[in-house]
Amino acid sequence: MKIDGTPYRAIWPSADGAAAGIIDQTRLPHEFVTVELRSLEDAATAIRDMWVRGAPLIGATAAYGLALAMRRDPGDAALADAYDRLIATRPTAINLKWALDAARARLAPLEPSARAEAAWAFAGTLCDEDVAVNHAIGRHGLDLIREIAAGKAPGAPVNVLTHCNAGWIATVDWGTATSPIYQAHDAGIPVHVYVDETRPRNQGASLTAWELGKHGVPHTLIVDNAGGHLMQHGKVDLVITGTDRTTARGDVCNKIGTYLKALAARDNGVPFYVALPSSTIDWSVQDGVREIPIEERGAEEVIWLQGRRADGTLDKVLICPPETPAANPAFDVTPARLVTGLITERGICDASAEGLAGLFPERAVA
Amino acid sequence: MKIDGTPYRAIWPSADGAAAGIIDQTRLPHEFVTVELRSLEDAATAIRDMWVRGAPLIGATAAYGLALAMRRDPGDAALADAYDRLIATRPTAINLKWALDAARARLAPLEPSARAEAAWAFAGTLCDEDVAVNHAIGRHGLDLIREIAAGKAPGAPVNVLTHCNAGWIATVDWGTATSPIYQAHDAGIPVHVYVDETRPRNQGASLTAWELGKHGVPHTLIVDNAGGHLMQHGKVDLVITGTDRTTARGDVCNKIGTYLKALAARDNGVPFYVALPSSTIDWSVQDGVREIPIEERGAEEVIWLQGRRADGTLDKVLICPPETPAANPAFDVTPARLVTGLITERGICDASAEGLAGLFPERAVA
Repeated sequence: MKIDGTPYRAIWPSADGAAAGIIDQTRLPHEFVTVELRSLEDAATAIRDMWVRGAPLIGATAAYGLALAMRRDPGDAALADAYDRLIATRPTAINLKWALDAARARLAPLEPSARAEAAWAFAGTLCDEDVAVNHAIGRHGLDLIREIAAGKAPGAPVNVLTHCNAGWIATVDWGTATSPIYQAHDAGIPVHVYVDETRPRNQGASLTAWELGKHGVPHTLIVDNAGGHLMQHGKVDLVITGTDRTTARGDVCNKIGTYLKALAARDNGVPFYVALPSSTIDWSVQDGVREIPIEERGAEEVIWLQGRRADGTLDKVLICPPETPAANPAFDVTPARLVTGLITERGICDASAEGLAGLFPERAVA
Repeated sequence: MKIDGTPYRAIWPSADGAAAGIIDQTRLPHEFVTVELRSLEDAATAIRDMWVRGAPLIGATAAYGLALAMRRDPGDAALADAYDRLIATRPTAINLKWALDAARARLAPLEPSARAEAAWAFAGTLCDEDVAVNHAIGRHGLDLIREIAAGKAPGAPVNVLTHCNAGWIATVDWGTATSPIYQAHDAGIPVHVYVDETRPRNQGASLTAWELGKHGVPHTLIVDNAGGHLMQHGKVDLVITGTDRTTARGDVCNKIGTYLKALAARDNGVPFYVALPSSTIDWSVQDGVREIPIEERGAEEVIWLQGRRADGTLDKVLICPPETPAANPAFDVTPARLVTGLITERGICDASAEGLAGLFPERAVA
């Protein structure tokens, strides 16, 4: 999408073909800094230190990291070493393993002399495929927004609420939850986004508000507490979130707090959609609440909060007594019964085993 | 309640009877500073600049402010002037007007020479009555906690979730939502409190966590997003919140986000109670969602966040792009259908017109 009028992807090959460019997302929204990844080490650091985040973007960065390693040494030992070093950066990121497995399967049978070029091409293809998938999600979601817009007064914006950042900078482009929004905006359909702050890491305030603003999409930041009240008063037409993991029957594991918004949507008759590439569906899991283990992160994320001081420096502030114990579950599970529909690259379906089987018959059989 | 073992009220007459002591709550939880209010001006500043907050405590502080004014000049003009100056400090605080009206009605018929002493006594009585009401709320709520404890394994804590600060420092003592918790703790019933951070002003993190910790009540701070997940997994036995305004049919207007917790409680079969002195019941209002206007506060409360830096200084940090628009509704309304019961000073009743009429027949007739 655009940053102040200039089209960007979240990762791109440099003009000289010697590096992959990324945005250092740890400095957003306060500073916009791009970085060139010129080596395996650079790519590993970018993933481990969360300069890049979001499952699709992590996978793409790993693919470029492997390609950069192959340029230095395309031998079998170097391939194995690069795989091991990259996969160790974020042990729980599913797309990381998926991208690395796919790249290794492609490269291992090749002569070493052919690997560098093949790896670079593979990374590019991986990125293009991510863009295509997200664009398709957006095209299907756009129909929902268009339909709602048709029922409103001419010029009245469609109000979409989203949680966390399932935006273009979590992917290579378009994002998942944001893809329908960007496509509606670009198509001239008036759309306005309520952006949940998304405590404790504030990805809504720091990333979603930033990317929507840079692309020119009207939006309003709200605290996570506010969405229910807005829905009670008819100020939200549609909720769209992303998901980290979707079960075979349509339960959605997403950033903590998603479940509360789904409850409020149900209570107020607001459609609640989840946008996802089918790669996030875990066909081996049925009951998300019972079966998906929820990552418990450190208390310091709750009690210390990062931001920019008035003098421009970045700092953290403590918001409670320093000895306060804090719990920090990172995700929650929204049961399928609260989800109006799943927006996938193949179309929109009910959040149910039947719905998913209709779109993905080849997987649902398993 | 206690602060590190020493019993406190949130407002108290000084030992020499010349001042009212308060805690400067704007400096909590990072600094514990008490202040002596020695004049009308001191009291007006304390209310206006939110050194004291919470409806009952504001009323009590205003009563002491009027008493301090009467000591300087007990004449009719001074009484009228003190009333006007105090009521202008927080225009929307209902208890402020209630306390000042009651004090003026008591003082106006008296000879000026008798007013200073009567006003001081009145302020003390007002405080004692607030303590008695909150203690009664806690006694009734204690029965709920005791009953839940009886159904658990011996020694297993009763897990209570609360939102915002309806604690003892919002009142003269005990608090409303916290009164059952303190009484259970003091009675030796193991109780543990999940404290919602309560964005945007973070009263849970900065005030509730502080007062529970100082009294020695086990607690865990969570972000506002986490409560639904905890309820899904059986980690919450009971929700108790306060309320700013309760309608005649039992709708509850409380700090933004309360509604989302009520929805989660209902979805998971967790009892959701609201603790209130009957003075917060607005008998003229039925449908809280439609009839109660919700205060919209400044965007800066959402985008700037205050806390303590590692070096100990207090500062604010910006959490989003500086140009980000933000909406900041301060309260929401939880419909009576989601409220298991109302805990009042006269007992517990259904959140309904019938329930309230049963406890307050003299008011419900109106």
